[in-house]
Amino acid sequence: MTGSVHLPPFLAACRRQPVPHTPIWIMRQAGRYLPEYRQVRSHAEFASLLRNPELAAEVTLQPLRRFPLDAAILFSDIMTPLQGMGVDLSFEPGPVVRDPIRSDAAIDALAQLIPERDVPFVLESIRLVRAGLPAAVPLIGFAGGPFTLLCYLVCGRPSKEFGAARSFLYSSPGAAERLLDRLADAMAVYLRAQAAAGAQALMLFESWAGLLAPPEFERFALRAARRTLTALRDIGAPLIYYVNQGSALMECVAGLDVDVIGVDWRSPLDAVRRRLGPGKAVQGNLDPAALFAAPEDLRQHAGRVLDAGAGSPGHIFNLGHGIWPDTDPDAVARLVDYVHERSSRRAGAGAAGT
Amino acid sequence: MTGSVHLPPFLAACRRQPVPHTPIWIMRQAGRYLPEYRQVRSHAEFASLLRNPELAAEVTLQPLRRFPLDAAILFSDIMTPLQGMGVDLSFEPGPVVRDPIRSDAAIDALAQLIPERDVPFVLESIRLVRAGLPAAVPLIGFAGGPFTLLCYLVCGRPSKEFGAARSFLYSSPGAAERLLDRLADAMAVYLRAQAAAGAQALMLFESWAGLLAPPEFERFALRAARRTLTALRDIGAPLIYYVNQGSALMECVAGLDVDVIGVDWRSPLDAVRRRLGPGKAVQGNLDPAALFAAPEDLRQHAGRVLDAGAGSPGHIFNLGHGIWPDTDPDAVARLVDYVHERSSRRAGAGAAGT
Repeated sequence: MTGSVHLPPFLAACRRQPVPHTPIWIMRQAGRYLPEYRQVRSHAEFASLLRNPELAAEVTLQPLRRFPLDAAILFSDIMTPLQGMGVDLSFEPGPVVRDPIRSDAAIDALAQLIPERDVPFVLESIRLVRAGLPAAVPLIGFAGGPFTLLCYLVCGRPSKEFGAARSFLYSSPGAAERLLDRLADAMAVYLRAQAAAGAQALMLFESWAGLLAPPEFERFALRAARRTLTALRDIGAPLIYYVNQGSALMECVAGLDVDVIGVDWRSPLDAVRRRLGPGKAVQGNLDPAALFAAPEDLRQHAGRVLDAGAGSPGHIFNLGHGIWPDTDPDAVARLVDYVHERSSRRAGAGAAGT
Repeated sequence: MTGSVHLPPFLAACRRQPVPHTPIWIMRQAGRYLPEYRQVRSHAEFASLLRNPELAAEVTLQPLRRFPLDAAILFSDIMTPLQGMGVDLSFEPGPVVRDPIRSDAAIDALAQLIPERDVPFVLESIRLVRAGLPAAVPLIGFAGGPFTLLCYLVCGRPSKEFGAARSFLYSSPGAAERLLDRLADAMAVYLRAQAAAGAQALMLFESWAGLLAPPEFERFALRAARRTLTALRDIGAPLIYYVNQGSALMECVAGLDVDVIGVDWRSPLDAVRRRLGPGKAVQGNLDPAALFAAPEDLRQHAGRVLDAGAGSPGHIFNLGHGIWPDTDPDAVARLVDYVHERSSRRAGAGAAGT
């Protein structure tokens, strides 16, 4: 790995190389908990913000101005490329699909995604962010996991249990596989375009895979994710697979050829690493609710995550799920500082041979 | 265990004794998927149905008339005893608490529960059901797990993530423990009264414990559940602890002194049994969505659960979560028959020495 000594900590950790401190970023770090984000949103609907490269870039950069985070992640929505595929979609505020997709005809009617034509504003946002970011801060591009997208497309709106999607897998497994293949291929094209525009790591968010038992996860969600991720391997950018509520799925995920597994807050990272085996870095996994603890308690909770992740190189600190809108930004500041300080002390101690 | 040879299969399986067939019952088996239940509901609001012993007993018995289920479970709601403790509650249709409980004063204002005075209709329902059930069909009494009740009390209404409850644990751990203690003691009294009225097994539904990471689960949810269950041990009725989304929590749960662990659909039962150790029976864990599969596929899915549960005595077949309102009752009939037939074939084969 030429030049690896000078990799930013986030990219080094993705490749399980030693780092001067444990890198940290926060899922949904560009978002409603920041007053400056709410300020932008007071002038722009969520849907129009997504399609406006200047505003999307501004919002992406906001948390980086406040906190010494180790990575930026594009402000976007996992449903955006589906609009590019012809899905009639609104945000109320969760994504609502006007005509849920449950038939072969509806699956066939999905257009092929050509990112430069269908979602040029996403690629332009990436270029603007990249131009505005310090070279030492990598930018993460992302897409929704095919199964998670299927959940929204089949159910039509957010749901606690996504019952219609789960019964669709059981009642129409062949159609479900066809839809997942379509989505997997589109997300591969989408992420490749993001990398070409300047994203230096690519993340697939499988937010609802934890609704599946392992056999259905393997057959539907993981098979489709593998299809997406395999198609991206030649790019060379680190690949991150986030699987929410995946405590029972780690043995399945272990076989996936990616660099990093994103882990929700329910599974201790040391146990996850044992189950994943040595070939993967882990990203996570503080409970977003822990940011509501008193400062001293927050340090204890964060320290526990650092300790569990410290068994070997390759830990990127993050929350186990997106940050909540009612979080105090000062708690985020304390968390970022603490993670940097405590892990650099350890890195220093390690270098001194203790 | 005197008389154990003649125990109904459900009670025998709770005690990990050999059974002629794998017993089966269905979480929410008395409910909206049955036309005869909807018929009753067309004349009675949910809230009044809960408080009417004749109707509650009728609805409890309905699924037993249709299917050869191995156990009945009282038709009630986990929030019912909280109304007895003075909580102002409505169903819209999920439970809505008029004044969410987030302060010491609100916790102290909770009344002690005296079941005979505060929820006599529940005990009368149990007596009526017991009188109407064949002797061979045991009746299960139940209560909500203290943490699950806390989720509703603190948040005030159902929520996908129960954020307010989870941040309450982190921001006010002492108050959370006090509230949980109150709830734990009340649920012990409540379940004891149910047993005295005729319930032959007692189940604690910890539906939202899976929102917690293991340390918070141990500190809050499990500690409170242990307080409830320990107080019930002298009764002698089997104790069942259902923990939804508990894949990461099984090592914690292993130390709980109960007879049966109810398992959601995400964790294969053989893996769960390995993690629980030999001292517990398991209950579960077909995905409720599997009832939407074609009949032949449903048999395969159910067979997988039977195989995973068959490693040693002590498997009660169930869904991994409550049955969905849009389920076809004929699918339930097929499932019950298949579980009985396939498992009695195996029991017979075992007796013949193959």
